[in-house]
Amino acid sequence: MIKDISDLTLKLKSMLSSQHSVYLKGSVADYIPALATVPPQLMGVSVATIDGHIVSSGDDQVPFSIQSISKIFGLVMAMNRMGDSLWQRVRMEPSGQPFNSIIQLEWEKGIPRNPVINAGALLVADVLASHYSSSKLAFLSFMRQLANDESIQIDQNVYQSELAHGNRNAALAYLMKSFGNIEAEIPDVLSHYFTQCSITMNCQQLAQSLLFLANKGIDPRNNKVICTRQDSHRINAILSTSGMYDQSGEFAFSVGLPAKSGVGGGIVAIIPNYGVICAWSPPLNKFGNSVVGMNLISGIANELGLSIY
Amino acid sequence: MIKDISDLTLKLKSMLSSQHSVYLKGSVADYIPALATVPPQLMGVSVATIDGHIVSSGDDQVPFSIQSISKIFGLVMAMNRMGDSLWQRVRMEPSGQPFNSIIQLEWEKGIPRNPVINAGALLVADVLASHYSSSKLAFLSFMRQLANDESIQIDQNVYQSELAHGNRNAALAYLMKSFGNIEAEIPDVLSHYFTQCSITMNCQQLAQSLLFLANKGIDPRNNKVICTRQDSHRINAILSTSGMYDQSGEFAFSVGLPAKSGVGGGIVAIIPNYGVICAWSPPLNKFGNSVVGMNLISGIANELGLSIY
Amino acid sequence: MIKDISDLTLKLKSMLSSQHSVYLKGSVADYIPALATVPPQLMGVSVATIDGHIVSSGDDQVPFSIQSISKIFGLVMAMNRMGDSLWQRVRMEPSGQPFNSIIQLEWEKGIPRNPVINAGALLVADVLASHYSSSKLAFLSFMRQLANDESIQIDQNVYQSELAHGNRNAALAYLMKSFGNIEAEIPDVLSHYFTQCSITMNCQQLAQSLLFLANKGIDPRNNKVICTRQDSHRINAILSTSGMYDQSGEFAFSVGLPAKSGVGGGIVAIIPNYGVICAWSPPLNKFGNSVVGMNLISGIANELGLSIY
Amino acid sequence: MIKDISDLTLKLKSMLSSQHSVYLKGSVADYIPALATVPPQLMGVSVATIDGHIVSSGDDQVPFSIQSISKIFGLVMAMNRMGDSLWQRVRMEPSGQPFNSIIQLEWEKGIPRNPVINAGALLVADVLASHYSSSKLAFLSFMRQLANDESIQIDQNVYQSELAHGNRNAALAYLMKSFGNIEAEIPDVLSHYFTQCSITMNCQQLAQSLLFLANKGIDPRNNKVICTRQDSHRINAILSTSGMYDQSGEFAFSVGLPAKSGVGGGIVAIIPNYGVICAWSPPLNKFGNSVVGMNLISGIANELGLSIY
Repeated sequence: MIKDISDLTLKLKSMLSSQHSVYLKGSVADYIPALATVPPQLMGVSVATIDGHIVSSGDDQVPFSIQSISKIFGLVMAMNRMGDSLWQRVRMEPSGQPFNSIIQLEWEKGIPRNPVINAGALLVADVLASHYSSSKLAFLSFMRQLANDESIQIDQNVYQSELAHGNRNAALAYLMKSFGNIEAEIPDVLSHYFTQCSITMNCQQLAQSLLFLANKGIDPRNNKVICTRQDSHRINAILSTSGMYDQSGEFAFSVGLPAKSGVGGGIVAIIPNYGVICAWSPPLNKFGNSVVGMNLISGIANELGLSIY
Repeated sequence: MIKDISDLTLKLKSMLSSQHSVYLKGSVADYIPALATVPPQLMGVSVATIDGHIVSSGDDQVPFSIQSISKIFGLVMAMNRMGDSLWQRVRMEPSGQPFNSIIQLEWEKGIPRNPVINAGALLVADVLASHYSSSKLAFLSFMRQLANDESIQIDQNVYQSELAHGNRNAALAYLMKSFGNIEAEIPDVLSHYFTQCSITMNCQQLAQSLLFLANKGIDPRNNKVICTRQDSHRINAILSTSGMYDQSGEFAFSVGLPAKSGVGGGIVAIIPNYGVICAWSPPLNKFGNSVVGMNLISGIANELGLSIY
Repeated sequence: MIKDISDLTLKLKSMLSSQHSVYLKGSVADYIPALATVPPQLMGVSVATIDGHIVSSGDDQVPFSIQSISKIFGLVMAMNRMGDSLWQRVRMEPSGQPFNSIIQLEWEKGIPRNPVINAGALLVADVLASHYSSSKLAFLSFMRQLANDESIQIDQNVYQSELAHGNRNAALAYLMKSFGNIEAEIPDVLSHYFTQCSITMNCQQLAQSLLFLANKGIDPRNNKVICTRQDSHRINAILSTSGMYDQSGEFAFSVGLPAKSGVGGGIVAIIPNYGVICAWSPPLNKFGNSVVGMNLISGIANELGLSIY
Repeated sequence: MIKDISDLTLKLKSMLSSQHSVYLKGSVADYIPALATVPPQLMGVSVATIDGHIVSSGDDQVPFSIQSISKIFGLVMAMNRMGDSLWQRVRMEPSGQPFNSIIQLEWEKGIPRNPVINAGALLVADVLASHYSSSKLAFLSFMRQLANDESIQIDQNVYQSELAHGNRNAALAYLMKSFGNIEAEIPDVLSHYFTQCSITMNCQQLAQSLLFLANKGIDPRNNKVICTRQDSHRINAILSTSGMYDQSGEFAFSVGLPAKSGVGGGIVAIIPNYGVICAWSPPLNKFGNSVVGMNLISGIANELGLSIY
């Protein structure tokens, strides 16, 4: 087990090289053309700690589409804005279904099971679109502040591609609206949601941006309160039961860290009171999680001897 | 049993008066404001025969919103335009679910079970919107021809109300589009569909407009071929298994005629080789079928001693 | 079109020979070993008329396992015994799901949609097992009377095989019992049900046994009332919407006769006021209906120019 | 926050008294008569630590029916017996449905989502019934060893009551068997399962019996290895995502400890590397979790300042 964070650098390098054929087992997301063209062999990893260290390796500074990882940030903004009233419109239960299933939403009358499945993230997008005069700018500004980088951008190519292939998300949103659980106009909700998903960031930025979840809601770099201690705890709880699509249970079982993946190939994992891991490699397994990313997070968790259980 | 059609006139009158408190058992559709304001006590009935008679009673000349009865006419147009290739995009099986359920559509990967549930009717609307330069005008023109009345109109009030409350239909349409089973843009599909539903006609017009289904596809008033004999047979088969929402089996069981109801309170029933009944009374039972309309159709079928079984 | 029944004999022969390679498109039911061994090339057909004729061809006197065709006879017995109270425990709606799905039963709280899907037939079996001191003997005796043949037997080999592979039916029965909709002990219900299914009859016997359904409830050979006129009508209605598993709508669409198939390869079709067709050929299509049987029924319906629509 | 375990005793007492009208908000389980008669006002709580302390209050020595808490112990036995091959027959994903739903099991072809929903626990019961010559004795013996009390017994009254009302569990088991995922005879599987559920223990015994899960698989009282470190980790992960029925997410969200409840009113919660809480009060909320038990666990977790997130 690693005692000193500086020992981790070499470890990361050797972990990455052990994955250099593994990525071939996965497939790059192709549901939108803009994602399908990312080179599959890219891979990077960063570990940021609350005491200010960051160790990285591989393509850790190559920006990628954060996709569903953005659900965490949207949720923080909505919790801050709505307080506990948010939980009357979305539950906090595991979904137990593939991440985009419409059936459960119908069954449960338009109340999504949690804010990190697509339906729940669309509801969060509705909250933001309804409560901010310009929710897209507010979101981008929040991300730039957390990453401490004003150059963070939306990939317009990805955004347009998402919009053109967003029929299932539109179906989820209209279904919720038919149950009275969406306030804004659906095109505005989708526009916000796809904007969120289309932000590009790199491993170093993502790992550092989430340090507040490992530190009771406070960004350790500047002591700013990003969310309450309780909400930080709650978000970690949700990520533990539901962050890895229909492989969340298996991930909790084998790794045991709150985590969230995106179909861009990124995965972030929170190590409470320690730091954040961000791994990236585009090819996905059948559940939509990065094959190499899963291995890297699992390997690092093991090296660090840190699991929440 | 009635032998002579002229004997029916008195019968209809007495049947109607027997229903003058029965309508109170139902509730006028209130999912859109424009329907909720129709006076519940109105009721009318017409029987048109293929040999040219028409007997009527009550408010048989008061126009009402035809709503889902329009699904029959849209289907005829789509069958004429697409031929058998239509059946690769919609099945002809009973739905076995409440008429607007989204679950079966997800389960069966965007292929609606039949063209008279909402999902199937939206698919038919897509066919029309995709194949006609102006499908709404084409539809209206088809209805005017069948009713032999150029004054038939769309109720713009109902149309706007449908659009404003059409979120569930939008969800169905986007879900089908996500499976690649819708070609046109969804707003165009919905606009066509709500236009169809918003046409107003009266009992006499509806009964006469459907005589071709009782006459092997040929309009007996002018010998025009409205659809093929086989398609006329097929439409009657679909109406028999699926025309009365989740009460279709019970209706087949107790009445045994191909029929279609709409939430405007209208019901049409085809008596093969004889004629068509159209009954109207706004208050609906829990299945969405007119309470009085069901009784009238059943009573007349009984009087005429005509069931298909 | 055939005008004289005697002209049909040659037609049947040529129809059968046209199917001599078609049966290869289907697969003999193999969910129980006892059915899997039936020679696939066997095929027979009989047409019995209410005026006393019977024309047949092929293996029309080879006994086969009637399987789900027995559901008709069980239903007649239960309707006679229970009257209209039967319909508080089973609905009469099309199922809209593959024939053995457990989901709809759960959704609708243990009330089967109709008496010819498995759940509904198990409920009917419960009625018989609860109301007769020996329901199996009563059923066999009813079949012998209708077929006018005391030698009709249960195939013990098939029965044992059904029992050994009846786990899904047991699941359906226990689920209904958990909702309070089964009275007898489950092993007794299953034993009755599998006994029914395991009776062997041939095409001639089955066609004649069902003449009462073409004749308003009265067996035309001896004028015995087998069921009321209304119940005869009702059973035909149910068979029209739900008799051919998840191909019922398509069958209504293309043939238009009340019919019931069994996984033994038999199909019976009722021609109201005319007679009954029974066709048999073991290989089944993906819906569980005999490939050749469907073709034969369809061909004969066409020749006779008789459809209910 | 409590620093010294001995300070907890007084706290527990005051917590219990604060609940003396709260229990009225719940309802004692009445699905079997034997449970419905337990006095609702009983309540007890025990906290056992891995360093050998135990503090308790209220009816902490009154035995109650452990019900679904037994699923933990059955799972340990099955994991020890089968190793990783167990996970080919049951998944480790959250269920996302009410605990006894049959729909997901059908959807996922007889593979339960995890071993602590009823279907999964029945599968575990099948493993035990198939691999032990007398699984019921083996289970009882395991419980007596863990509780260090040879007098622990099965409540025959509860057992008989469970058997007589076990139709839904029978349906689940037969459905899994129809998919080939159950090896033993269903009556044997059910008999084992209901035996497990019918064991009676008190808060002190349950808290101490589960110390191995807070101590990496080793019973701290005698250093016996009850399960591997990895399996202890895995079980805690499963309990975190799925131990509290359809309130598991909310519990993780608000308390954040691996826990399991039973309809007898007991709840156990594991505090990794610290100890185990067992709370008991019969009245349940709508999710099937003890109202008072939830409050007590939550209050103690708060006092101890120990959450896994």
